[in-house]
Amino acid sequence: MKKYLMTPGPTEVPAETLLAMARPVFHHRTPEFRETLEEAMELLRYVIQTSGDVFLLCGSGTAAMEACVANALRPGDKALCVLGGKFGERWANICEALGVAVVPMDIEWGTAVAPQAVADALAREPDIKAVCVQLCETSTATVTDVEAIAGLTRYTETLLLVDGVSSVGALEFRMDAWGVDLLAVGSQKALMMPPGLAVVAAGAKAVKAIEAHGGSGFYLNLAAAKKSADQGSTPYTASVNMVVGLLASLRMIKAEGIENVWARHAVLGTALRAGAAALGLPLLSSSPADCVTAIRLPEAVDGGALLKDLEAKYGVKFAGGQNQLKGKIVRISTMGYSGPFDVIIALSALEMALCDAGQPVELGAGVRAAEEVLLQR
Amino acid sequence: MKKYLMTPGPTEVPAETLLAMARPVFHHRTPEFRETLEEAMELLRYVIQTSGDVFLLCGSGTAAMEACVANALRPGDKALCVLGGKFGERWANICEALGVAVVPMDIEWGTAVAPQAVADALAREPDIKAVCVQLCETSTATVTDVEAIAGLTRYTETLLLVDGVSSVGALEFRMDAWGVDLLAVGSQKALMMPPGLAVVAAGAKAVKAIEAHGGSGFYLNLAAAKKSADQGSTPYTASVNMVVGLLASLRMIKAEGIENVWARHAVLGTALRAGAAALGLPLLSSSPADCVTAIRLPEAVDGGALLKDLEAKYGVKFAGGQNQLKGKIVRISTMGYSGPFDVIIALSALEMALCDAGQPVELGAGVRAAEEVLLQR
Repeated sequence: MKKYLMTPGPTEVPAETLLAMARPVFHHRTPEFRETLEEAMELLRYVIQTSGDVFLLCGSGTAAMEACVANALRPGDKALCVLGGKFGERWANICEALGVAVVPMDIEWGTAVAPQAVADALAREPDIKAVCVQLCETSTATVTDVEAIAGLTRYTETLLLVDGVSSVGALEFRMDAWGVDLLAVGSQKALMMPPGLAVVAAGAKAVKAIEAHGGSGFYLNLAAAKKSADQGSTPYTASVNMVVGLLASLRMIKAEGIENVWARHAVLGTALRAGAAALGLPLLSSSPADCVTAIRLPEAVDGGALLKDLEAKYGVKFAGGQNQLKGKIVRISTMGYSGPFDVIIALSALEMALCDAGQPVELGAGVRAAEEVLLQR
Repeated sequence: MKKYLMTPGPTEVPAETLLAMARPVFHHRTPEFRETLEEAMELLRYVIQTSGDVFLLCGSGTAAMEACVANALRPGDKALCVLGGKFGERWANICEALGVAVVPMDIEWGTAVAPQAVADALAREPDIKAVCVQLCETSTATVTDVEAIAGLTRYTETLLLVDGVSSVGALEFRMDAWGVDLLAVGSQKALMMPPGLAVVAAGAKAVKAIEAHGGSGFYLNLAAAKKSADQGSTPYTASVNMVVGLLASLRMIKAEGIENVWARHAVLGTALRAGAAALGLPLLSSSPADCVTAIRLPEAVDGGALLKDLEAKYGVKFAGGQNQLKGKIVRISTMGYSGPFDVIIALSALEMALCDAGQPVELGAGVRAAEEVLLQR
């Protein structure tokens, strides 16, 4: 049975990238690797829309998030963490582990933080050193207006830390133009790679903070990373074949054009949401992201059983809900290596699985609504 | 853009098979290759449902067809060729090239030959040495009742040559139980391999004829092939990595079970036909095959332009019509590595492309009809 990996990470990887990664391993201290890394870093800057510092880590998205907190903040510093989902909580958990004082901003899961609420919090506690947000909160498929929040912090001493793990390369993001200070990205999402690489981008204000600290720790020390990056290298052994693969995927993004990539994701997200609406299924989020869609299931449906049916009978793997959303939603990725027929497959599979679950479903209705959107592109 | 290869050959190949083929080349005169070949041949016998002789050639399906004619017939022999499509004509063209006298049986493209018509022809000309038919005539997506025709020839001196290039491994076929004498198969269809390997199977009556001739020619000489095969080898250099890949695909067929593979194709063919009917598109064939479906396009639609749109805008590659059917039909494969969502993609793409072509289409209607069939499995 064919398999369709439609979780919000890991995501499917183009065959071209997998083939590039299958090449014989070569050494990381060679002109060949230096050239590979150099081009990959240049293309990462393009994807992130920055001319500033970008660091490639061998680690997961969480490593990149920890590197941001550890290197820009110090124990005792205050960080405002928007807690609107599992990855908002991740920022807070990292801060707590590193002795950074969390100023929690609880919002309902599935909503985006209002920039005004952040402005108010900063006005209330001017000693907040950092604001930690998600561009896309993967657990609720919610996009936040990072540009507006960056407008609050960019000409202040406060740093803005953005989790772009599941969204950068899919949703519009402009590091320099918006004035974001620190960004964390993972390879296994919109960058169309297997898990294992993480990216940190740092604006000038963040670099100043990092250098003032002299970096933090050893493996995730961004001062060391910067020193190596300035010499076109990595501080420790680079994940050679992963970098080769990353370059292949980044070249595809460059060939498509980043604005076109964003536009493609907008179409796919719109089509998927239209399909869900046509099936009478509400979205979880009031600020839905285009790279992942969280769909509420009818109350009578056991979400866990539905996911098992989708995987066992149809070969389609969606993600479920986390924490209090467990069993109540499905999350479907359209990030990265996704096209129109992934949306069609997702909706067709959902229609049939809901039918299997005894729900009244108008077969084809979700697909029809998606096709109507796709035809308008 | 993702690509979907839905032509009736070549067809998509499972990643597991492609990965198996990517292993380092090894020599063909080794115990390792002998074991690989032995298991592949055993599994081919299972797919073909024979305990008789099976030969693996490095060549296309046409090589297998020529091997059948060249080794079982002699110049001046008479062969009844059913001419109901391009591949029926292929049998006749091969016979003519080899000096075999063609007794043509013209039937309308898109129809299957009536076994009674074959019986009548054999009664009229008892010196006909061979009957040449297609199990599936790929150009018209038509299945022929080979079992019934074999019933006419099996206890006579007449040989039955069956082109199973696009059908064996997808449609029910029982070499021994039906009493077929010679069978030609290609790798790039239901066997889930790239093009490049061909298979000939020969029943006892055919082997007798081949040995009486001492084979014919050199490269396609089946007497030489039999001598090598009896020793677990091939007469000339074997296509090593292709055989490795074939084994991987055959193991998948064996794991699924050949009756289940046939049943899967029946469901996919039925679903695709239901989708076409729901879109108001008639089939070309009055005896439609489950491994490939030929759908008539509305008169106002330029079939060539539609195929171009499908490929350029949707990444979906169907085949068009050949000869007098050029521009009038699309042919969609469900053979080999095909699953339910390939049918869904095909119908969704067809719906959108017909819409692009200005046709009145009820979007989602084809998909809905296919889902109804798929849900009943």
